[in-house]
Amino acid sequence: MATLRVPQVVPSPVEDTQQLRKAFVGLGTNEKTIISILAHRNALQRHRIRETYHETYGEDLLVSLKKEISGDFERAVMLWTLDQAERDAVLANEAVQKWHPGNLVLVEIACARSAAELFATRKAYQARYKRSLEEDVAAHTKGDFRKLLVPLVSSYRYDGPEVNTKLAKLEAKMLHKAIAEKSYSHEEIIRILGTRSKAQLIATFNHYNDEFGNPINKDLKHEAKDEFLSSLRAVIRCLVCPQRYFEKVLRSAIEGLGTDESVLSRVITTRAEADLQEIKEAYAKRNSKALDAAIAKDTSGDYEAFLLELIGHNEN
Amino acid sequence: MATLRVPQVVPSPVEDTQQLRKAFVGLGTNEKTIISILAHRNALQRHRIRETYHETYGEDLLVSLKKEISGDFERAVMLWTLDQAERDAVLANEAVQKWHPGNLVLVEIACARSAAELFATRKAYQARYKRSLEEDVAAHTKGDFRKLLVPLVSSYRYDGPEVNTKLAKLEAKMLHKAIAEKSYSHEEIIRILGTRSKAQLIATFNHYNDEFGNPINKDLKHEAKDEFLSSLRAVIRCLVCPQRYFEKVLRSAIEGLGTDESVLSRVITTRAEADLQEIKEAYAKRNSKALDAAIAKDTSGDYEAFLLELIGHNEN
Repeated sequence: MATLRVPQVVPSPVEDTQQLRKAFVGLGTNEKTIISILAHRNALQRHRIRETYHETYGEDLLVSLKKEISGDFERAVMLWTLDQAERDAVLANEAVQKWHPGNLVLVEIACARSAAELFATRKAYQARYKRSLEEDVAAHTKGDFRKLLVPLVSSYRYDGPEVNTKLAKLEAKMLHKAIAEKSYSHEEIIRILGTRSKAQLIATFNHYNDEFGNPINKDLKHEAKDEFLSSLRAVIRCLVCPQRYFEKVLRSAIEGLGTDESVLSRVITTRAEADLQEIKEAYAKRNSKALDAAIAKDTSGDYEAFLLELIGHNEN
Repeated sequence: MATLRVPQVVPSPVEDTQQLRKAFVGLGTNEKTIISILAHRNALQRHRIRETYHETYGEDLLVSLKKEISGDFERAVMLWTLDQAERDAVLANEAVQKWHPGNLVLVEIACARSAAELFATRKAYQARYKRSLEEDVAAHTKGDFRKLLVPLVSSYRYDGPEVNTKLAKLEAKMLHKAIAEKSYSHEEIIRILGTRSKAQLIATFNHYNDEFGNPINKDLKHEAKDEFLSSLRAVIRCLVCPQRYFEKVLRSAIEGLGTDESVLSRVITTRAEADLQEIKEAYAKRNSKALDAAIAKDTSGDYEAFLLELIGHNEN
């Protein structure tokens, strides 16, 4: 469930646009207006505001915003204002440009979205960067990570509920054999994780657990830090239980020495209109404190205010 | 250019449907009516006929056709009557089910179509088979062929005209190095062929030729028959010059001991509404005889009549 709250009576795009413009002009910027409008409009409404703004003032709303605000607040507002596919394309491109083995953004975009959403992102990526997502991923990664990531971002998984039980048992065995041999980048692991439907994979992982006594992700844990294994576990969690995956990502971002604002902004802007409610509930359960309280403690100013509006702070 | 000829005044789908039904009922079938209608309607018109037929008679037109006609004629009419994406999905599924290293149908569908056409086929494949195309390809192929085919059928290439010349030179070198080392399934070969745009690849192959003195496909030839090398050459020809590729496929189908009707039907039904005119011209030039004369010589009956109508026999 989304945490985004849209007022019962929404001003027209023309009214919203005029209010935003008023917030920009003159000395200083009225950040409160920016927050009160943009943090309470859904994707379609934001899209119309951006169109209307462009038609009226001859400038992209994002360009105007960039001139007025800065830092973490700017980045969060920019990400949020984009369409979902465009936002994921921007995040994927950033991940590609500065790719390192610990970066899980490509895994998230490939596995924690629906097949149709991932395909929309591939289209948006081409429109924006004049290259395909998969060619950039292939060119900027190497070795086992490339073997894993290229099929993931190229996937268009079947999303029906049908499950082939015989196949699930067979592939659970194949996964177990490869993992037991510590052959973690085995082509059968890549093939199964990269092509099977989510329903089929859930059945396969259930058989794995029943047959071999451990959840697959436990067998993919190693005492030593291994970033390829971390990626495999992230793939599985994003495919099977994205809300718990995102809960953990938020927890790490908040818990660490200093808060990781780029992670906070990414998770909140990408999930506020999807399943942030479930992520909040998982967070409260796991950490015995509310996500909004934790964020309020670690952030400040307009950035704090914006994130709290997106996670539905005042509604609970 | 298409060879399909549609009459200037096209009967309504209701009229066409009634005529087809009349051709089916009673003793015997009027094959001439089937040919005169279906071989002269474009994809949208055939789609409407199929819809109207289903609404009127409660049966899929393809099912009715199957009861009335048989053999090569049946198969050609069935393939032709399907939408392009559905037809490619059926051909891809057949190729997957009876896959062997010499089968180039998956290469054709992945490389001789536009990115949007291939994606439409992936959607149609899921709707029809309740699995993704790439999971079936991955599950039914192995070794180097799997390494090559899975990324090809999963690709959604950028189709703009932009070319990065520096990159083309760099990747021509990478291709040459791998080929010189006879490392034909090298991951850089797979990556470049599997992800780059057609415009970029054409530039890369031109640099290859300029820099190393041979067209890349010449360097991919071997005295001994090697089906993986044949596949690589087919990938390159389908990406760069599909018409000359299809000319050769038709030539082999006609020249061999006995005609390969399944190849004839596939190439003619998939290209008649696309570029069969150019393929015909390439065939005439290369073989010093007209494609329709060659087909008329090697086929007979309703099958011959249907193919000749599709290739625009009476119009030249």
